[in-house]
Amino acid sequence: MTSKAHEIRLKSRPVGLPQAENFELTESALPEPDPGEVLVRNLWMSVDPYMRGRMYDRPSYVPPFQIGEALQGGAIGRVEKSNNSDFAAGDLVESMNGWRDAFVSVGGALQKLPAENVPPQAYLGVLGMPGLTAYSGLARIGEPKAGETVFVSGAAGAVGAIVCQIAKLRGCKVVASAGADAKLAWLKSVGVDEVVNYKTSGNLLEAVRKAAPHGIDIYFDNVGGEHLEVALEVARPHARFIECGMISAYNDTEVKPGPRNIIYVVGKSIKMQGFIVMNYWDMRDQFRAEMTQWIKDGKIKWEETVESGIANAPKAFLALFSGANIGKMLVKLG
Amino acid sequence: MTSKAHEIRLKSRPVGLPQAENFELTESALPEPDPGEVLVRNLWMSVDPYMRGRMYDRPSYVPPFQIGEALQGGAIGRVEKSNNSDFAAGDLVESMNGWRDAFVSVGGALQKLPAENVPPQAYLGVLGMPGLTAYSGLARIGEPKAGETVFVSGAAGAVGAIVCQIAKLRGCKVVASAGADAKLAWLKSVGVDEVVNYKTSGNLLEAVRKAAPHGIDIYFDNVGGEHLEVALEVARPHARFIECGMISAYNDTEVKPGPRNIIYVVGKSIKMQGFIVMNYWDMRDQFRAEMTQWIKDGKIKWEETVESGIANAPKAFLALFSGANIGKMLVKLG
Repeated sequence: MTSKAHEIRLKSRPVGLPQAENFELTESALPEPDPGEVLVRNLWMSVDPYMRGRMYDRPSYVPPFQIGEALQGGAIGRVEKSNNSDFAAGDLVESMNGWRDAFVSVGGALQKLPAENVPPQAYLGVLGMPGLTAYSGLARIGEPKAGETVFVSGAAGAVGAIVCQIAKLRGCKVVASAGADAKLAWLKSVGVDEVVNYKTSGNLLEAVRKAAPHGIDIYFDNVGGEHLEVALEVARPHARFIECGMISAYNDTEVKPGPRNIIYVVGKSIKMQGFIVMNYWDMRDQFRAEMTQWIKDGKIKWEETVESGIANAPKAFLALFSGANIGKMLVKLG
Repeated sequence: MTSKAHEIRLKSRPVGLPQAENFELTESALPEPDPGEVLVRNLWMSVDPYMRGRMYDRPSYVPPFQIGEALQGGAIGRVEKSNNSDFAAGDLVESMNGWRDAFVSVGGALQKLPAENVPPQAYLGVLGMPGLTAYSGLARIGEPKAGETVFVSGAAGAVGAIVCQIAKLRGCKVVASAGADAKLAWLKSVGVDEVVNYKTSGNLLEAVRKAAPHGIDIYFDNVGGEHLEVALEVARPHARFIECGMISAYNDTEVKPGPRNIIYVVGKSIKMQGFIVMNYWDMRDQFRAEMTQWIKDGKIKWEETVESGIANAPKAFLALFSGANIGKMLVKLG
């Protein structure tokens, strides 16, 4: 009996909010590994908001996904068979071969996980790309100083929750916005100073003003839209805006106005800087060392929201846009 | 016969585009200088777009002008009488005591002009605040590298024209936007590579695309509005936006939408940073030395647009908003 692999392909390009019908689950034979190759069974895969951008057919910092081809994304797997001397059966490996349950590879793009006492899926979250995004963006663009006030939107997400906790470790006051009271309660439990439920606050500007009466020095933006406008309004002079994402706009089907108060960038000497995690890849070793230590010391906590099975990967992805996740959204495959 | 001083006071706060009736010319006795004081006759005064901001009654980086009080701004004058050992009659001095033709001062805020072979009013333009604004903003935020493309809006103004020429000296390609063919012809004559008349181009985005087919690495923004949106559209990854001013919005009476494509800040890793010249005051000595040398070497040229007489200062100021000036707008008082 031949072994089978399953993968999720892009069936059609979403218009607006992605739908289940934009995705297709396929089954194909899983070949035996040739000499030099390894066979990997994925245990976990990541879904991340940035993947929505790759579903548009347009030039960007990563090439668009192609219709009829498997999607890609971070995954953690276990080597099942190895004909490559760099890997042994049983090794845990990280790859960009998510959205499938097994694959055969020459191994060049696989990385063995460090032998740390953390769950392997942490390398898709707190110790992975979202963690490095939080760590590097806050450090390189935010340059936080003790006593400053940091405002974080999408604060209960995989990136935002880490930003909040690193900012606390750097001695900052943290004001966090999220869209559910359960998220806010968890954020308070990990040390966030002030929380705002943007769905129920009524007036977001007034809620943030109340939470940060002296204004904000740093804004870590995962959301864009009204949150960005509010942040510009309450920004103190020389504020730094870390433009990590604008999830509120990812599914827009028509062009929306930008922040009406963009002129504050001039008068308040604001730095607003976008980035992608690859820009700060040079910080990866430092990040992994410091974050691993923080985890060992109990100084950083994280949540996971888990769907099970490759067939549910689109559902997990779609749930990102309704804010269904607390912390890192994962799909368990193994 | 007592000597008289004339000054322009803010009579009422402008709503929208300032009008002549918002200003008032007054005459008062000019006192004799007491011991320690000097009497200065102004020769030149500066009008600058940023002054519009000080006419609003709102908190900002400089306090608002007060109704019934004289306006302030850069001026060059000559010491007529001195009872202060730091100054002698005949000294040329720079002050923030513009909008008046003479004043008495204890001298603490006066600076003697360097003994260089340049016209004194150059210290209100190319060697003054507009020059330092251009020099420091381009250096500190833009960080231009040879071969990069720099897009400058308001390019024929006091700041923009200097930005264009410094960018050329740094080895960049320069694309300049202004609103009159005479301005563009002058910009070409000082070495600008490509020019765009935003008033007659029809489609500004297409015009800038044609002028910069490979995109822009740096945008020096004096204008905001549509220019900013166009710059975001044509920006290359890691572009730097030097947010110096947004003159298109200074007289807005209703809130206007911001750039609809602000999301490019994220995907293109754009840095958009506002500043005021005081932020980079530490560069002043270096700037004056390098700019003075460039002027001696004939590498930087400038234009002036001059109104005469204190009574015409409001007219000169208002003309900034119709783009009537090529280069530095000045009022000749002496």
